[in-house]
Amino acid sequence: MARNVEHGLRPIAEVARDLDLSESFLEPYGRDKAKVRLEATDALGRKPGKLILVSAITPTPAGEGKTTTSIGLAQGLRRIGKRAALALRQPSMGPVFGRKGGATGGGASKLEPSNTINLQFTGDFHAITAAHNLLAAAIDNRLHFRDTDLDPTRVMWKRVLDMNDRALRHILVGLGGRSQGIPRESGFDITAASEVMAILCLADSRQDLRARLDRILVGFTKANEPVLAKQLKVVGSMAAILNEAIQPNLVQSTESVPAFVHGGPFANIAHGCNSVVATKMALGLADYAVTEAGFAFDLGGEKFFDLKCRSAGLNPAAVVIVATIRALKMHGGVALSSTSEPDPAAVERGLVNLAAHLDSAAFFGKPIVVAINQFGTDTPEELGVVHEYCHDRGVGCATANVFGQGGAGAVELAEKVVEAAAAPEAPLKTLYELDWPAEKKIEEIARVMYGAAGVSIQQEAESKLKKARRLGYGDLPICMAKTQDSLSDNPKLRGRPKGFTVHVRDVEIAAGAGFLVALTGELMRMPGLPERPAAERIDVDAEGRITGLS
Amino acid sequence: MARNVEHGLRPIAEVARDLDLSESFLEPYGRDKAKVRLEATDALGRKPGKLILVSAITPTPAGEGKTTTSIGLAQGLRRIGKRAALALRQPSMGPVFGRKGGATGGGASKLEPSNTINLQFTGDFHAITAAHNLLAAAIDNRLHFRDTDLDPTRVMWKRVLDMNDRALRHILVGLGGRSQGIPRESGFDITAASEVMAILCLADSRQDLRARLDRILVGFTKANEPVLAKQLKVVGSMAAILNEAIQPNLVQSTESVPAFVHGGPFANIAHGCNSVVATKMALGLADYAVTEAGFAFDLGGEKFFDLKCRSAGLNPAAVVIVATIRALKMHGGVALSSTSEPDPAAVERGLVNLAAHLDSAAFFGKPIVVAINQFGTDTPEELGVVHEYCHDRGVGCATANVFGQGGAGAVELAEKVVEAAAAPEAPLKTLYELDWPAEKKIEEIARVMYGAAGVSIQQEAESKLKKARRLGYGDLPICMAKTQDSLSDNPKLRGRPKGFTVHVRDVEIAAGAGFLVALTGELMRMPGLPERPAAERIDVDAEGRITGLS
Repeated sequence: MARNVEHGLRPIAEVARDLDLSESFLEPYGRDKAKVRLEATDALGRKPGKLILVSAITPTPAGEGKTTTSIGLAQGLRRIGKRAALALRQPSMGPVFGRKGGATGGGASKLEPSNTINLQFTGDFHAITAAHNLLAAAIDNRLHFRDTDLDPTRVMWKRVLDMNDRALRHILVGLGGRSQGIPRESGFDITAASEVMAILCLADSRQDLRARLDRILVGFTKANEPVLAKQLKVVGSMAAILNEAIQPNLVQSTESVPAFVHGGPFANIAHGCNSVVATKMALGLADYAVTEAGFAFDLGGEKFFDLKCRSAGLNPAAVVIVATIRALKMHGGVALSSTSEPDPAAVERGLVNLAAHLDSAAFFGKPIVVAINQFGTDTPEELGVVHEYCHDRGVGCATANVFGQGGAGAVELAEKVVEAAAAPEAPLKTLYELDWPAEKKIEEIARVMYGAAGVSIQQEAESKLKKARRLGYGDLPICMAKTQDSLSDNPKLRGRPKGFTVHVRDVEIAAGAGFLVALTGELMRMPGLPERPAAERIDVDAEGRITGLS
Repeated sequence: MARNVEHGLRPIAEVARDLDLSESFLEPYGRDKAKVRLEATDALGRKPGKLILVSAITPTPAGEGKTTTSIGLAQGLRRIGKRAALALRQPSMGPVFGRKGGATGGGASKLEPSNTINLQFTGDFHAITAAHNLLAAAIDNRLHFRDTDLDPTRVMWKRVLDMNDRALRHILVGLGGRSQGIPRESGFDITAASEVMAILCLADSRQDLRARLDRILVGFTKANEPVLAKQLKVVGSMAAILNEAIQPNLVQSTESVPAFVHGGPFANIAHGCNSVVATKMALGLADYAVTEAGFAFDLGGEKFFDLKCRSAGLNPAAVVIVATIRALKMHGGVALSSTSEPDPAAVERGLVNLAAHLDSAAFFGKPIVVAINQFGTDTPEELGVVHEYCHDRGVGCATANVFGQGGAGAVELAEKVVEAAAAPEAPLKTLYELDWPAEKKIEEIARVMYGAAGVSIQQEAESKLKKARRLGYGDLPICMAKTQDSLSDNPKLRGRPKGFTVHVRDVEIAAGAGFLVALTGELMRMPGLPERPAAERIDVDAEGRITGLS
């Protein structure tokens, strides 16, 4: 096995060969990354593999380790002789410099080359930024030349940067006089929140990408008529900017499992999954394609089925729910700072949260496996509480030490997943029908996924839903924007809250992505840097070795 | 010769082999582009080749075709059996969507793959954008947390985007209340105008890059003390973002001459040349390295010698001055719209502009060759006027049909350049000494390069120069920001204006790049889109073929 001296990684062409993917389909980016041509999936003509969705319980602020578990699981599958591939989101660079640090898994279950993946990678986020901002520039250009009916106060299309920069959230543009554009309020979101990102991730071909870009709703005329991106005439240029970004990126895990890492939309105002083209490529080339959906099952899992699978014709063979003993203790009422101390009773109390997500996942009728992402502080008694619960419920459960042991720590998990996925394929079940009224769709999600007693759709949201119907967007599915910290829309409610009402404050039309966003609470689309950002700890030496990026 | 089916291009590894550059030094980006590791230059241990600087007379708005002529010349050198390479700037994407279209040469003398080079290329501009904006975010973050003495009204560091977007020129950031940053005036420049771009282009190593970033002057405290980027503590992260961008990009010309295309700073507020590392790489690997400097010789040529060569220890063997018959007619008083009509008398009158640039170039003591970039409308009589003039002056002159015939159209030019460059090497001569007072440096440039009668340094500029001296920046060289449309600072004065005064309105300290910018007139750092931008004519088909990008 030839190894690249610099990274200790196998050349990416070799990794591709593990999937019978010939070099002619690769566009190399360095020696350890490649873009894969879209034709590759069909060219091989294999029977598609089984899709394994990795989701989680309601996480602690540190997360449940879904990415690390997904990578560990894929490595475990390979250890038991299965042909596995990963389809994962790519990290956003902004948060890497903020609080979060890297987002490429951890320990013995990582994506490599992790530093590059966390920073520029193959430039996809930058391409999305540029495509998004070209449309914004075209809008302000038309306003400047008075060459549009667009109402400057009703432009909804903002600008984006892949940077945590709170000072750009609310800005005034076009100042400085007559030749500097039209003064108006606007702002920047982070690139992961761009509708272009959601579009790139949901498009299943270049044509679909182009058509979705055309359909973006950018604002309204003074007569309240919709203005679509198509009318600005720069969509062809946007597609040209995205011409390479639409191709999935191939990298590898610590144990050299092929990983298609492509796209990274927000999991609240968007659907939070990697690209459809990457998922289909992993399925087309491997027997087991392991993918994940953002946040916990109530948000990510539901959107995976109702938005991504429905739109792309995907159908998972099994669902893995990742839980940590720490998070279960948190749901059992233990303060975050004390979740490292042994407390099996708290774990027991916290099982209500796991139960809620298992109930939600059960709705979709797929086999389920619980993966306990093991930490050094977990006691056998605490682990036993979860295993016993799953046993009683008749759900497979495995403790996985993916951070410490990589694939070797996930062999049991891999075996249980293979067993679960061996069940005969059931057709895709979705939570609601597209022709239901939006209000009914929202209510169904809130009741079945969140356990809400009901939904309160506030006036602003109701009038937006009416407008959406009038404009022909009534049949779009719903993308719920809700806190990830609770099953309810109140981030403080841990465990399995009951009797609460979900408040839908506002609704947005993501016509290009193809969903209506129902907003509950305030959603942050442009993070800020913390007082001591991670950016202060990163450096490069004279030979180009990056330090301080976890 | 193996050819890539898609582009009809040779694989880049083969192009590299023409320079004895082994694949181990390449980081491929697709099959037809590569980044080259910085170690490559030294590793080969060849005697450096001869550096050929391509500059021009004062251009028409369409430009004199310096890039096309540079590429044609390198192809001509190869045709006469010389080992040649190009070191050129990379296009900025913003203007590609504006008025300009692509910037990769033309006809039979182009850089390939031109579409990619004009768009994302290898992501360098985006990396520069991100590094620049991380520093901006860190500044506003310190202001937000009240963790700095920086005076919000004296922050000079703005943000950048590689986009023509006039509405971002003057903005208010930090609006929206207490948790959204500190409200203050700011704006965006285009990425080519970023000091990080100038720094990347002048740095001769990773260490030098890091040190220059540290030295950026971002603003002043309330006590009027300077605040450097180093104090914001994110320079290590900026260097990490630039870790791949600092490596030169290797592509090829239409006739497969190796081309190091790297960096693209403005030619007014910056020095307007490709990166030092790319120029040194071309010199280290080829016998003739053809490079160019932005705008005409008065601006680009002067900065090439006084800023780039002085800082990097480079020393050109010959200078090529590109002229077109059209531009000479314009300088001879013909309206732009009539420059296609035969008018040898106007060409004769316009020779004063060529004479001025030849005088300027002569100051630096290098052999000079005039290249007439031929157009179909040029008559033999008109061409004869220029040849006769050059002959009388004792300067080599060749008509080159590089657009129509590629290298074959530049054989005579190549021969004359080889002949000129065969002269014994003279030490580098600069126009002024670094320990002169800034005012004297500016006056020398204005008198010798522009033919000015004198310089008027306005009050704002004078007080900035005083401040620069107080802060220890008095010994920095001068980067003149002047219109490219005239030898004077009045864009309307064609030909060779006399008796004019150059007005220095303001001065900026580019401490990281290592020069003081003397501003004459208003400089545009963020272009706008025209009413019918080129972006409206670009598209992509279902197979990913881009159309409409010249």
